Amino acid sequence: MAQRVYIADVAAHNGKEVTLKAWLYNKRSSGKLWFLLVRDGTGIIQSVVFKGGVSEETFQACDEMTQESSIELTGTVSEDKRSVGGYELQVSDIKVLQVAQEYPISPKEHGTTFLMDHRHLWLRSSRQHAILRVRHEIVRACREFFDGGGFTLVDAPVFTPNACEGTSTLFDTDYFGSTAYLTQSGQLYMEAGAMAFGKVYCFGPTFRAEKSKTRRHLTEFWMIEPEVAYLDLAGDMDLAEEFVEHIVKSVLKNRSKELEALERDPGLLEKVIRPFPRISYDEACEILRKKDHEFKYGGDFGGTDETIISEAFDKPVMVHRYPAEIKAFYMKNDPDDPSKALCVDMLAPEGYGEIIGGGQREDDLAILQEKIRKHDLPMEAFDWYLDLRKYGSVPHSGFGMGIERAVAWICGLAHVRETIPFPRLMHRLRP
Amino acid sequence: MAQRVYIADVAAHNGKEVTLKAWLYNKRSSGKLWFLLVRDGTGIIQSVVFKGGVSEETFQACDEMTQESSIELTGTVSEDKRSVGGYELQVSDIKVLQVAQEYPISPKEHGTTFLMDHRHLWLRSSRQHAILRVRHEIVRACREFFDGGGFTLVDAPVFTPNACEGTSTLFDTDYFGSTAYLTQSGQLYMEAGAMAFGKVYCFGPTFRAEKSKTRRHLTEFWMIEPEVAYLDLAGDMDLAEEFVEHIVKSVLKNRSKELEALERDPGLLEKVIRPFPRISYDEACEILRKKDHEFKYGGDFGGTDETIISEAFDKPVMVHRYPAEIKAFYMKNDPDDPSKALCVDMLAPEGYGEIIGGGQREDDLAILQEKIRKHDLPMEAFDWYLDLRKYGSVPHSGFGMGIERAVAWICGLAHVRETIPFPRLMHRLRP
Repeated sequence: MAQRVYIADVAAHNGKEVTLKAWLYNKRSSGKLWFLLVRDGTGIIQSVVFKGGVSEETFQACDEMTQESSIELTGTVSEDKRSVGGYELQVSDIKVLQVAQEYPISPKEHGTTFLMDHRHLWLRSSRQHAILRVRHEIVRACREFFDGGGFTLVDAPVFTPNACEGTSTLFDTDYFGSTAYLTQSGQLYMEAGAMAFGKVYCFGPTFRAEKSKTRRHLTEFWMIEPEVAYLDLAGDMDLAEEFVEHIVKSVLKNRSKELEALERDPGLLEKVIRPFPRISYDEACEILRKKDHEFKYGGDFGGTDETIISEAFDKPVMVHRYPAEIKAFYMKNDPDDPSKALCVDMLAPEGYGEIIGGGQREDDLAILQEKIRKHDLPMEAFDWYLDLRKYGSVPHSGFGMGIERAVAWICGLAHVRETIPFPRLMHRLRP
Repeated sequence: MAQRVYIADVAAHNGKEVTLKAWLYNKRSSGKLWFLLVRDGTGIIQSVVFKGGVSEETFQACDEMTQESSIELTGTVSEDKRSVGGYELQVSDIKVLQVAQEYPISPKEHGTTFLMDHRHLWLRSSRQHAILRVRHEIVRACREFFDGGGFTLVDAPVFTPNACEGTSTLFDTDYFGSTAYLTQSGQLYMEAGAMAFGKVYCFGPTFRAEKSKTRRHLTEFWMIEPEVAYLDLAGDMDLAEEFVEHIVKSVLKNRSKELEALERDPGLLEKVIRPFPRISYDEACEILRKKDHEFKYGGDFGGTDETIISEAFDKPVMVHRYPAEIKAFYMKNDPDDPSKALCVDMLAPEGYGEIIGGGQREDDLAILQEKIRKHDLPMEAFDWYLDLRKYGSVPHSGFGMGIERAVAWICGLAHVRETIPFPRLMHRLRP
């Protein structure tokens, strides 16, 4: 056997004999020639088999090979600008490991349910490849941003003892006789982390038992949540826009081929540079009013509202200072207008909706206790959280970004279900 | 206010006036002087307050400041080799944000239960800081290794539809009327990923409802699991040792101060260089026999057995080819001795036990179906998994490493409960 190489690396072996370990992606014949399109997970290469260049059995094997058959090919790499990837393999030998059974996913159109039922195979297609490679790059860039910025990773627990904000959208499990809830956010734990390490983040799966079937909801999704001590809302917005700019730049730099495969216009993403527009909730309402869009002042924005607001800008827009009443108990009120919360939502362009939510946290013990009472929440559940306001309370802020929505936006996907390898939806728990 | 800097960065501001935003860690007075030891999460610095150098109120404030009070200090950085970190702050002004209530964790000894109950505050102590910063470095190095090695991140789902290997140690939850189980391993999903991407890994929390109270068990722990197509057991062991060497080297390089704080002898870790010893199960049994240690051939190793085996080596040892009978259904049998499985466990030195388990997977459809029947498992639950053996099956291997056990070993900790920010144990679900 010649040196085994991955298809992604063939350029370094131009003119040399190599062995590829791969699967058959597609094939066509023209009499004395077989053109085998093979994939090995790192790329696709056209492999040319001449009738005279290989043994009779090998040439015959090409005829019998089905889509997704596993094969080892030996041959010489040669540059060919017309070929996918710019290189071809002139095949001298093929070893067939397995002739695959008839592959259920053919180039013809399949329905979404069928494809989702075959997700474990669908992952092999070029489009899903491109999406998940962009997802990987986003995850990598997220961690790179915080690791390089002096943040400490503080993994938040999945099992939590209390249903802090009502149980209606929480999954629970029997925990040796008591009940544990699956986390919806690591924020409260990150606040403890920020008081210990100054700047922290967590990044893991979170869960929401929402009976929602929209294109923006998964029951299991990944969230990255930074939290910083001695940071106010303005600083939080600085951090959020620097973070998002970094992610988009990383994808543009390292996954341009995948964006192309997804027919995603990079020009739209190249506009995502700081500073991002910052508008207040009141200003956002004014945008809706000017568009004659029906909206009740004081309420939260729905999907359509968000789309209209975001369409007024060509980069992500940060909407801050929502009415305190519709926001979570832990948010700090604006001292200049206590009816507003020092919070921020970042809306992606092109109608992709909220990708980031965050803000400054209430740091005064008495006010926080009052808010917990007002929200009718069980005070004893927050014993440890209130400790953070007793022992050196400081202004602090943070935010959370849902990875799948960011992937959907950056890849330009209509539905989040393709943004995660094995999506979990209300009616989808397998494979 | 002077320029705000983090304590970790003061060296770059030697001789300059800066502002620190911090908490009081400790203090002592000598009449006209206050020595304030302050921390900001990135480091600790001694801050010197002269009675004549600050206002009367500021000097008085030092007297009233309690441990963990939040304070902003302005002063001049000056090099001082005797000081912790090598620098001091000559204080000109202090702003007290909050005088903390009496801090529950004092320098005196506390019991483990008390400290675990106050985990949200305990994280502020130097020792916990050091451990979690080593943990962060291990996580970073793990991802760096695979990201840099051409692996694609394929996040495995937490919610799984079937109890593939019995329900006794699985947590479950109501999933819109059906039952979802919380993952114990992403391996089966990684096998699907490897057939799509060639080389993949997942890294996330996994769950085990074990009624176990040993020092090596958590109910929620993080696991990293690579899986590679066209890889056999020998290649899997190559990958595992390269991976572990990389992690240990990264910690030695980037977290030497933390290891020192933990009084961990770096000499022991410096020995962790490839190649690691590889012994068969039979050879491991021979070690036990020579030590006159009672052990029944054919069974799995217990904690004490593992300790005795690992003590025969000064680096991690890889034990391969256990009896197939005691191993999972998906393991491939050794063609040279079908009573053995092509599996490997890596045992950490110094009695820290198994940190890695993995091996080559059964890739033959008929044999795999037979194994599922023999293990009395529900065939229909494996429909999708069996597909991987129908459509281009190839030899493939992988492994899983539990992060917390790796942290315990590298930090030299007796118990895994300090290796994760918010540990979950049978009797521990809070804070």
